Amino acid sequence: MNLPSKILEHAVNELSQFPGIGKKTALRMVIHLMKQPEESVGSLAKAIINLKTNLQFCTICHNVAETDNCDICKSINRNKRVICVVKDFQDCISIESTGQYNGTYHVLNGLISPLDGIGPEEINISSLLIRVNEKETDEVILALSATMEGDTTSFYISKKLKEKAIKITQISRGISIGGELEFADEITLGRSLLSRVQMS
Amino acid sequence: MNLPSKILEHAVNELSQFPGIGKKTALRMVIHLMKQPEESVGSLAKAIINLKTNLQFCTICHNVAETDNCDICKSINRNKRVICVVKDFQDCISIESTGQYNGTYHVLNGLISPLDGIGPEEINISSLLIRVNEKETDEVILALSATMEGDTTSFYISKKLKEKAIKITQISRGISIGGELEFADEITLGRSLLSRVQMS
Repeated sequence: MNLPSKILEHAVNELSQFPGIGKKTALRMVIHLMKQPEESVGSLAKAIINLKTNLQFCTICHNVAETDNCDICKSINRNKRVICVVKDFQDCISIESTGQYNGTYHVLNGLISPLDGIGPEEINISSLLIRVNEKETDEVILALSATMEGDTTSFYISKKLKEKAIKITQISRGISIGGELEFADEITLGRSLLSRVQMS
Repeated sequence: MNLPSKILEHAVNELSQFPGIGKKTALRMVIHLMKQPEESVGSLAKAIINLKTNLQFCTICHNVAETDNCDICKSINRNKRVICVVKDFQDCISIESTGQYNGTYHVLNGLISPLDGIGPEEINISSLLIRVNEKETDEVILALSATMEGDTTSFYISKKLKEKAIKITQISRGISIGGELEFADEITLGRSLLSRVQMS
């Protein structure tokens, strides 16, 4: 694309570095910005910079936070004796949006993946073990993805916590709610048959 | 979406104001930014602000520019006696990328559209007439879209320029190069039959 101005070109190049945003979409974004008042463009730029300068990570659970501790760890309404282990802070958002969970989180910031050179030391497992050791904990919920990496990580953590007198659970796997059987993949359907639950 | 931080929420809201960008895509963009080094995030923010503070419009042709005049109007290699009239600066980019044009442009910044309350005074037509009056011009090429608004604007400009001794042309319309006849719409195909060109 042959842009008529270096300023334009620079902005298009910067915006097209986002995942899934190509040069054409970036140009459409730039044109949108050009039509906005100066304050709202400044406010966007400030919001972007704030992400790097003011955003922190909770020292307890590694979730995103604005101070040393995140809102969930600071809240007096959350059950501190239950810890839900998740891969990243997006998974916290997903679980929070269900409205079904009142405990705290522990964000691993990755999963064990020997193929990618990610071992237990590269993710926040040791801080989880220290946390369980130091504070009274009733239950650790493993809410990791149903993939090779997720299962490996779940297995590793459950092995490490085995000696402690705490309940270790894993979120259930099976067919989606509202999903038709014919569209479920064979492996999921097979697993959901094996782990069937008694109704009466 | 229940985000764990106001800073995050603010950035997501700002980014989701772009056309075609929803909250989920905005969150993906924010996560991408969080992983970038501080300099590159600062550079993005600067590029965005630059768009409003340093970008100008050419006083001759209304194309985007970094100084009073755009690169095309300043260039000694372009034929100043030919003016191509386009709707917006994106159309300049499209025509420039063909590599087939060596004249100058005139960016209308819109098309006449009575339904939207846009008359000839709302777009850059008067500056085109002044430009044709003051500088020697051989040809005005109307490169507007083949829509009601484009045709109305083309007709208005050609009527206004009728008295001057200059050639007024319109870009040709017909089936796309590489396009199959069966996929062309009836109106385009009908028009391309009527405006057939003698080959020998």
